[in-house]
Amino acid sequence: MGGIREYYNHDVDDIVKTILQDYDKKRDIDKMDVVRQPDRKAIIDIVGKLLNIFFPGYYRDRVYKSFNDRSRLSVLIEDALYNLKKQIEIVLPYDPSYAQADECALRERAEELAISFFRQVPKIRAYIDTDIQATFDGDPAAYDKGEIVLSYPGLLATTVNRVAHELFVLKVPLIPRMMTEYAHSETGIDIHPGATIGKFFMIDHGTGVVVGETAIIGEHVKVYQGVTIGALSTKGGQNLKGVKRHPTIEDNVTLYAGASILGGETVIGRNSVIGSNCFITTSIPEGTRVTIHNQELQYKNGDCITFNVDDLGNC
Amino acid sequence: MGGIREYYNHDVDDIVKTILQDYDKKRDIDKMDVVRQPDRKAIIDIVGKLLNIFFPGYYRDRVYKSFNDRSRLSVLIEDALYNLKKQIEIVLPYDPSYAQADECALRERAEELAISFFRQVPKIRAYIDTDIQATFDGDPAAYDKGEIVLSYPGLLATTVNRVAHELFVLKVPLIPRMMTEYAHSETGIDIHPGATIGKFFMIDHGTGVVVGETAIIGEHVKVYQGVTIGALSTKGGQNLKGVKRHPTIEDNVTLYAGASILGGETVIGRNSVIGSNCFITTSIPEGTRVTIHNQELQYKNGDCITFNVDDLGNC
Amino acid sequence: MGGIREYYNHDVDDIVKTILQDYDKKRDIDKMDVVRQPDRKAIIDIVGKLLNIFFPGYYRDRVYKSFNDRSRLSVLIEDALYNLKKQIEIVLPYDPSYAQADECALRERAEELAISFFRQVPKIRAYIDTDIQATFDGDPAAYDKGEIVLSYPGLLATTVNRVAHELFVLKVPLIPRMMTEYAHSETGIDIHPGATIGKFFMIDHGTGVVVGETAIIGEHVKVYQGVTIGALSTKGGQNLKGVKRHPTIEDNVTLYAGASILGGETVIGRNSVIGSNCFITTSIPEGTRVTIHNQELQYKNGDCITFNVDDLGNC
Repeated sequence: MGGIREYYNHDVDDIVKTILQDYDKKRDIDKMDVVRQPDRKAIIDIVGKLLNIFFPGYYRDRVYKSFNDRSRLSVLIEDALYNLKKQIEIVLPYDPSYAQADECALRERAEELAISFFRQVPKIRAYIDTDIQATFDGDPAAYDKGEIVLSYPGLLATTVNRVAHELFVLKVPLIPRMMTEYAHSETGIDIHPGATIGKFFMIDHGTGVVVGETAIIGEHVKVYQGVTIGALSTKGGQNLKGVKRHPTIEDNVTLYAGASILGGETVIGRNSVIGSNCFITTSIPEGTRVTIHNQELQYKNGDCITFNVDDLGNC
Repeated sequence: MGGIREYYNHDVDDIVKTILQDYDKKRDIDKMDVVRQPDRKAIIDIVGKLLNIFFPGYYRDRVYKSFNDRSRLSVLIEDALYNLKKQIEIVLPYDPSYAQADECALRERAEELAISFFRQVPKIRAYIDTDIQATFDGDPAAYDKGEIVLSYPGLLATTVNRVAHELFVLKVPLIPRMMTEYAHSETGIDIHPGATIGKFFMIDHGTGVVVGETAIIGEHVKVYQGVTIGALSTKGGQNLKGVKRHPTIEDNVTLYAGASILGGETVIGRNSVIGSNCFITTSIPEGTRVTIHNQELQYKNGDCITFNVDDLGNC
Repeated sequence: MGGIREYYNHDVDDIVKTILQDYDKKRDIDKMDVVRQPDRKAIIDIVGKLLNIFFPGYYRDRVYKSFNDRSRLSVLIEDALYNLKKQIEIVLPYDPSYAQADECALRERAEELAISFFRQVPKIRAYIDTDIQATFDGDPAAYDKGEIVLSYPGLLATTVNRVAHELFVLKVPLIPRMMTEYAHSETGIDIHPGATIGKFFMIDHGTGVVVGETAIIGEHVKVYQGVTIGALSTKGGQNLKGVKRHPTIEDNVTLYAGASILGGETVIGRNSVIGSNCFITTSIPEGTRVTIHNQELQYKNGDCITFNVDDLGNC
């Protein structure tokens, strides 16, 4: 036994030494500047506090137990603002124009950005209120608006996008994407912070939904699980940065489960309905209903018979 | 610097005031009644305790460290029951017939419902035992039943549905959906608590699976990733509440990856197999094997050649 | 009231008794051996520590606050190694060849396996470094490699697979699958630990991706959301264990969103591109571009007009 333990300790020492040497290769993966990294947990915590602020009656917060809701909320708002400011201060140097800024300039700018964001809170709440209404109106399984706030992943993903999008517009690096990836992880819905989304937006079920960075979505749009609002082949890679690569979806459009709408010049005209699994890479005029035509299914049941399934419903 | 800090403080005051004013608009989103809201964390905690109760040897619980498993489990059962009762008491007024009930009546009814649910635990465990068996029999990658209990998302989603469905049948508001949305978030599998699922149910991989509120699923059914058991176009919205909008899947049916089965009158007959990506909106007689016929794929390889791909396998 | 409380207490006693009796049925679900179960939280914690070790500058760890990064990392490596060894010791008896081993033999073997794994850390880091590069090169929405490390689910799932695969190769039971299911839960990407993946692997968006146990993937492969690299019908169940059931993807292949590649004898030749939603069950020669041909979409807009959509782009 004694021999085994010594062998083990020797190996541990050797492993530690080998890994520490591996860090000296000066690759990007070897970067050591922990102080300059945003804190994922702090950012998720800020998102949680924002949900408390947006839906003051729905999210209970054990920390701020208080008989006076308004005092509780004052403390919560100040706290979220302070923490957002701190994280922005950390990430600003990721923006090349702040790479050389001194601490004072970073703090001042972080304060301005955090303040600017929080001035948008009433506007964001007004948008979210329309999303709740759209979800309630659109889903017969919704018993109550409270149920939507407390449990619908589509509302969570949309709310986090509305937050992240404001920060994206303010050119805050990294934090917006960390926020939407948190929502992606919770919901399976991947909306890039750059995507612009109008009022009364509803996502039902939502797992597998992808909305790209330069997508523009109008008002009263409904999206079901597995829908992609994406780019055409991105083999251009980094050369395509900043180019509009994702579609425009006009008002009152419904995209049923599994539909793919692709390409920066693709426009789905207002009042259109795109059926399940349709794959669209060209613009669709307004008021159009698109379904897959003549999906042939083969039924084998003793004999081999072939039916055409014409009238494809939508989910 | 001093000037900056004062400016910042002034802004914070102003932001807090503006957001507090925003709460006075009396929209649903402005509701402030924190005491009457269920606690998402408490409900997730109840689910965790139920998993401990269902699989007594698999989930370790650091809190109830004990040499005597049965004492540990007694404490755990009482604790889960007590906490479920408390959460039911909070949500009952969401049911209009309890909106005016006094505290005593709510507590009494919550106790009855929690007791009724826990009386189902042995039945639920008997069902789950069959799900584990079906998963082991159906997945060649499963090395051990323990691996299934400890790591298979399909079993987690099915177990949570079986819990939530009992509470749904007991007409407990909100909590069932919060439970299934927790499972949805963990697994990408979205099964509505209203869905009725028979014994020996297996979901493999599971990301993107959607099973709607009024679906009825028989015994020995297998479902793969991306399958939708859903509604046809729900443009009726809230008017469709309570209508059977989702299919019936009979015994011994397999639904391969990406298959969509839609509509409240659609019945998939027993012993049928629905191939990957098939889109079904009409009933299928028993013993039928349905695959997509003649998916044409285009191969470009120097010359442009077109093949028909006939024999579509299934995953 | 007093009557109600007594009634309740009686019911609780009865429920506890009934559930405890249910545990005596000696089914697999009734197993009680808590000591021999791996701890899911401990395994997730090990994954977290490994991420810290792989990306020393990106993941902050409040516990090891230290001005000296290298001391901090030494402690972290030793800690992760110690905890991995402990968990391996617990799971080893799941391997039939260790079912009868005594504690000493288990500990000795667990030490050897943990040591063997940690000796691979520099190799794993070298692979991950190529994955970050591939992701940056392939995604125009990526602003910075730091953003990829901190927020891209594809990198998380790939990193966890690279860890789990080493443990799988070392024949460690259960832990590899618990690790990849943790990543599946976080990302919606389900890569079996058995899958072998070459350098410069990139998954974008990723929700719904499934990669099976016996898949072999070359270098510079790109995979988008909803792609399945899976098995043909697995109705053979446990009889198929160990058989190569999943495809081989050669170097420089791109699989666009929703493509399904199925079957153990299917080989996608190098430099091929498989378009969105293609369903492939036979081998594809190198340098081939496959798209769905002639998806017919039906446009209804007043009159009923049918278009053929030929040129299917890819997302």
